[in-house]
Amino acid sequence: MATQRLSIGIVGASGYTGEELVRILARHPRVSLDAVCSRSLAGKAVADEMPRLRGVVDPALAFSASSPEACAQSGVQAWFLALPHGVAAEYARPLVAAGRRVLDLSADFRLSDPALYRTYYGHEHPAPELLGKARYVIPELEPAGDWKSAPLLACPGCYPTSIQLPVVPLLRAGLLRPEPGRLVINSLSGVSGAGKKAEAAYLFCERDGSAKAYGLPNHRHVAEIEEQFARAAGGPVVVQFNPHLAPMHRGIATTITVPAPGVTAAQVEACWREAYAGRPFVQVLRPGDFPDTGHVAGSNRAALSAVADPRTGNLVLTSAIDNLLKGAGGQAVQLLNLLQGWPESEGLA
Amino acid sequence: MATQRLSIGIVGASGYTGEELVRILARHPRVSLDAVCSRSLAGKAVADEMPRLRGVVDPALAFSASSPEACAQSGVQAWFLALPHGVAAEYARPLVAAGRRVLDLSADFRLSDPALYRTYYGHEHPAPELLGKARYVIPELEPAGDWKSAPLLACPGCYPTSIQLPVVPLLRAGLLRPEPGRLVINSLSGVSGAGKKAEAAYLFCERDGSAKAYGLPNHRHVAEIEEQFARAAGGPVVVQFNPHLAPMHRGIATTITVPAPGVTAAQVEACWREAYAGRPFVQVLRPGDFPDTGHVAGSNRAALSAVADPRTGNLVLTSAIDNLLKGAGGQAVQLLNLLQGWPESEGLA
Amino acid sequence: MATQRLSIGIVGASGYTGEELVRILARHPRVSLDAVCSRSLAGKAVADEMPRLRGVVDPALAFSASSPEACAQSGVQAWFLALPHGVAAEYARPLVAAGRRVLDLSADFRLSDPALYRTYYGHEHPAPELLGKARYVIPELEPAGDWKSAPLLACPGCYPTSIQLPVVPLLRAGLLRPEPGRLVINSLSGVSGAGKKAEAAYLFCERDGSAKAYGLPNHRHVAEIEEQFARAAGGPVVVQFNPHLAPMHRGIATTITVPAPGVTAAQVEACWREAYAGRPFVQVLRPGDFPDTGHVAGSNRAALSAVADPRTGNLVLTSAIDNLLKGAGGQAVQLLNLLQGWPESEGLA
Amino acid sequence: MATQRLSIGIVGASGYTGEELVRILARHPRVSLDAVCSRSLAGKAVADEMPRLRGVVDPALAFSASSPEACAQSGVQAWFLALPHGVAAEYARPLVAAGRRVLDLSADFRLSDPALYRTYYGHEHPAPELLGKARYVIPELEPAGDWKSAPLLACPGCYPTSIQLPVVPLLRAGLLRPEPGRLVINSLSGVSGAGKKAEAAYLFCERDGSAKAYGLPNHRHVAEIEEQFARAAGGPVVVQFNPHLAPMHRGIATTITVPAPGVTAAQVEACWREAYAGRPFVQVLRPGDFPDTGHVAGSNRAALSAVADPRTGNLVLTSAIDNLLKGAGGQAVQLLNLLQGWPESEGLA
Repeated sequence: MATQRLSIGIVGASGYTGEELVRILARHPRVSLDAVCSRSLAGKAVADEMPRLRGVVDPALAFSASSPEACAQSGVQAWFLALPHGVAAEYARPLVAAGRRVLDLSADFRLSDPALYRTYYGHEHPAPELLGKARYVIPELEPAGDWKSAPLLACPGCYPTSIQLPVVPLLRAGLLRPEPGRLVINSLSGVSGAGKKAEAAYLFCERDGSAKAYGLPNHRHVAEIEEQFARAAGGPVVVQFNPHLAPMHRGIATTITVPAPGVTAAQVEACWREAYAGRPFVQVLRPGDFPDTGHVAGSNRAALSAVADPRTGNLVLTSAIDNLLKGAGGQAVQLLNLLQGWPESEGLA
Repeated sequence: MATQRLSIGIVGASGYTGEELVRILARHPRVSLDAVCSRSLAGKAVADEMPRLRGVVDPALAFSASSPEACAQSGVQAWFLALPHGVAAEYARPLVAAGRRVLDLSADFRLSDPALYRTYYGHEHPAPELLGKARYVIPELEPAGDWKSAPLLACPGCYPTSIQLPVVPLLRAGLLRPEPGRLVINSLSGVSGAGKKAEAAYLFCERDGSAKAYGLPNHRHVAEIEEQFARAAGGPVVVQFNPHLAPMHRGIATTITVPAPGVTAAQVEACWREAYAGRPFVQVLRPGDFPDTGHVAGSNRAALSAVADPRTGNLVLTSAIDNLLKGAGGQAVQLLNLLQGWPESEGLA
Repeated sequence: MATQRLSIGIVGASGYTGEELVRILARHPRVSLDAVCSRSLAGKAVADEMPRLRGVVDPALAFSASSPEACAQSGVQAWFLALPHGVAAEYARPLVAAGRRVLDLSADFRLSDPALYRTYYGHEHPAPELLGKARYVIPELEPAGDWKSAPLLACPGCYPTSIQLPVVPLLRAGLLRPEPGRLVINSLSGVSGAGKKAEAAYLFCERDGSAKAYGLPNHRHVAEIEEQFARAAGGPVVVQFNPHLAPMHRGIATTITVPAPGVTAAQVEACWREAYAGRPFVQVLRPGDFPDTGHVAGSNRAALSAVADPRTGNLVLTSAIDNLLKGAGGQAVQLLNLLQGWPESEGLA
Repeated sequence: MATQRLSIGIVGASGYTGEELVRILARHPRVSLDAVCSRSLAGKAVADEMPRLRGVVDPALAFSASSPEACAQSGVQAWFLALPHGVAAEYARPLVAAGRRVLDLSADFRLSDPALYRTYYGHEHPAPELLGKARYVIPELEPAGDWKSAPLLACPGCYPTSIQLPVVPLLRAGLLRPEPGRLVINSLSGVSGAGKKAEAAYLFCERDGSAKAYGLPNHRHVAEIEEQFARAAGGPVVVQFNPHLAPMHRGIATTITVPAPGVTAAQVEACWREAYAGRPFVQVLRPGDFPDTGHVAGSNRAALSAVADPRTGNLVLTSAIDNLLKGAGGQAVQLLNLLQGWPESEGLA
């Protein structure tokens, strides 16, 4: 069976998302994790640098420092890119040209509009010629599966995943028609959302006991959220997105307030249940039960709940995911599973 | 000087708010903490039951189990009530009748409308005849000081304090005129907001790593917020209030989104600076700096910040307080200081 | 294949250890989790009461309240008992009589001496007639496997597992011959070690920020540690055991100081590597690397490290495990795997 | 009264200890905090860089970058040095020469033996000529006060303070006579003990959920502990010191195991009560009550408890302090208070 395994590589494996990808793929029964690339850790054993993975990875597995071209020329068939934006495109270009599968976890191919990319990321898009080949996919929201032929998959960001799962089915069903600025999103993220950067702001003593908003009013993820909402609604949707840091390792809890007079919680739940029927990773909670990051941490699951407030005419939609799994590495592997025709939860349950 | 100290008592001292009151009042240079009442801890030494207060309180100080009548007949001149709603009124009645100062930290006198009380608390108001004598006061929002003659002060709740401080000056100035349901409040509270209840939901292992919304859509504090907002706005204001728990001991971070087309952050800041000029406990942060619970924990301070989003026409207002201090015991002592004509920050800096 | 699965039950499933057992066994490829018993939760859905297990367990799985006799008469072939001491024996007696496999995670069968049981647990042993049928097993320390025929397996406690893994091979090899009281053990446990008891001492606000020793000088686990050390050393070993609580959900870090003049770290490591050759769950770290609870949390692994201090003539041995897995439910399933002749890490990797 | 305040400066104020010194001294009723030096933060407002101190410090207070000579020539009368070892001596030399009071919180003057300094710190002592002028002082252990005439005070380290307070009185009284290596110390420190270094090891996501030993077997503080123990015992004492990190912001919990056959807990407590009679910051707990970092955090207090184990012949002594206060800045201010003849707890209660 080993010879039938799909050969997999990860580039940019040194961060928290990279670590989760290694953890999942090292145990995935249908793949062979053949390349784990990190310039900063090249030559070092993965199990030494990521001690949470001791016993999970082969002790002989070491980081390598392969160039984009070397990756493209290797026999590895599918690549996960866990790189900063701008850098990911450098790897994507030769890999796509060589016919490799690319699952990009950076922001480089999340926006279809290169002008929007320039506005939000502060530089020209590094590979605009690839935008037409890329597909942005949350798997539960693209059940038709036509994206499977795209050579390049853009994996959604963590906040956007927690936000689109509750909202997109409602936009598609016409249950929501928010006026500009009236769809108000508040999200709380665990500290791993900031990555493994050795900055004073993310020291234990700075974050312990600390909850705060940051980056208001225009977080980069707004562009991605609004592009996708516009697709779902068939017209522009302008959101207010308020991200916060909470003193926890992982997880995102999102609370969305949106006017929807006359829409009941039962209607929302029915819409969700229809959209997510048969999908293993989206769970609609019982009324009165609210998503809790502690209940989904370590899993690829998303929990959703809805409340309608007759006093205000608002819906309040809540969700929780693990930012490193359903919000990053887990969802990327879920995409691979579907691409390959494997069970959706293979290696993820 | 000891003979000139004001004689003070606390009823319901066994919880986290009671502990903070004991801590502050035991060191306050102008009061004598002469009674610390708790039925459940009667006879026990305060320093044994509240080991964080060892070295702060006199080792001989013990909890007593005084009846309302005994409290009223004692020589103690001012009483802080840190009791559950319903019970506080039982103490307030004889204390007010005996001419004692009463600072009530429960919800019993926060609402002026007893029908609203019945709706939100599920029982008839326990002392409607006292409602006319009670004043609800956030000291920075009542600079005229006419409340000082009221025999009974209702100390605001923790969430409402974090919400009114940024919003009330703007309502008064006419900078905000939100339509019903468009003033959207998201608050994150530390776990001490739930009190010292031995319930499984508040165990370390349940709350560590957990962020979640709860109690949607109609938390009891909504009534108090809306009554005060209506006073400030000169007409009804209907809010959406989404409370959340975050895995931290203390603190509330509040984020308020509200349509206010054309209003700039500079206008908001100017309004705040005028309203809070000379007040030691309210701080308007620099643009781009956001309130952080970790920065106000252990203090009576509130931090405020404002952002205007031209894309959405919204203001996003953020605040942070320590729920047990500015949100409870600290603010109550601040009120006492002002009542007595002492420096506002006496015993609180 | 489903018909070949081993039918499994859990009694006392409502606590943290029970939850881990359910999590593991619900996904274990060779068993069928057919009974999950809890008197307090009987009739409720497991996925509702243990929301971390949503998506892991069958939504239809519900807690039942089976009597010991009903359990024994059912078709379930192997039972895990996650019950308080004293109660476990009530279930073990009919189950053993009916020829069921019993893996007991309580303290009831950990001590071979019923007098010691009375001393440490304060009551007569509830089933002394079963003591001869019970075997206490840390699987890596019993490679001969003669325990597989015992009808009743006593699963070791969390602290004792973290302590025996580094020490027992050294006692057996004669590298340690500590005089009474000179083997000094300090352990730090996560709060889940206290179970899911709704007591004020285990509230988030009491444990956050808190590290402390407790229960000195004679924790119940001392009896178990000393009985096993005596077996390994061929004579009595008297230890000093100092347990501590640290503000974390799970994990035990143990540090053992013991005089061993002339013994080098390399000798210790060689002894460990020999004892644990081929065992997937025990890892000997590189010199200078110390076990970290964060690195083993969520796994069934134990990490070990040794330092020899020539200044003092002492060895300092350190270990880390997840108290709920290698210290409880994970190790119990590891025992089942070995009993059945399955791969040791089946369902645990 | 302002003209009578003592003019105070802090050098190296950018770290966590510096922040605590600023906090205390800005509110101390008898000093004027006239200089806050930090090369890295020079020119910036203290309240902006240390937002926890907003409302505590004068908004106009800014960091300066004064040279040692400039400090010495200024009118500031007493200086706290919160600098790395090696650097502190550069400031101490001209300050002592100019007759300024120097309270050094670095390790530069903690050891009287420059050879030991070289061994533990890896370089020659930077100012051996000052060693004769320096005194190492834990104030409760030097009640005679003859150290008040020393021009240079070496403030003890955090671990050593938590260790000496329980042990030194027992050594002096002859209750302990440990053989080499038999005095076994295990300490758990909060993460702030590592300082405000932006290193990956101290990120929230690395420390959350993590307890571990580190730096075995020969932490730098061993030298300081043993020098002081030798003074107290009248002969060499060789200790085993095992430091650990626990996932909390602040605090040290220390547990010391030492053979002392026949010595009772009551004898230990009596010895402590005599040594610490009248001292406000050392508290001997009731039997069965154990020091908890959460109970002393934010205070300058140390809590002590003793247990005698007749099974082992050992004493187990436990203590807790706040590492940044009694273990650093608080104790330094306590020394200043005593030096100046002020109440010991001035500015610290």
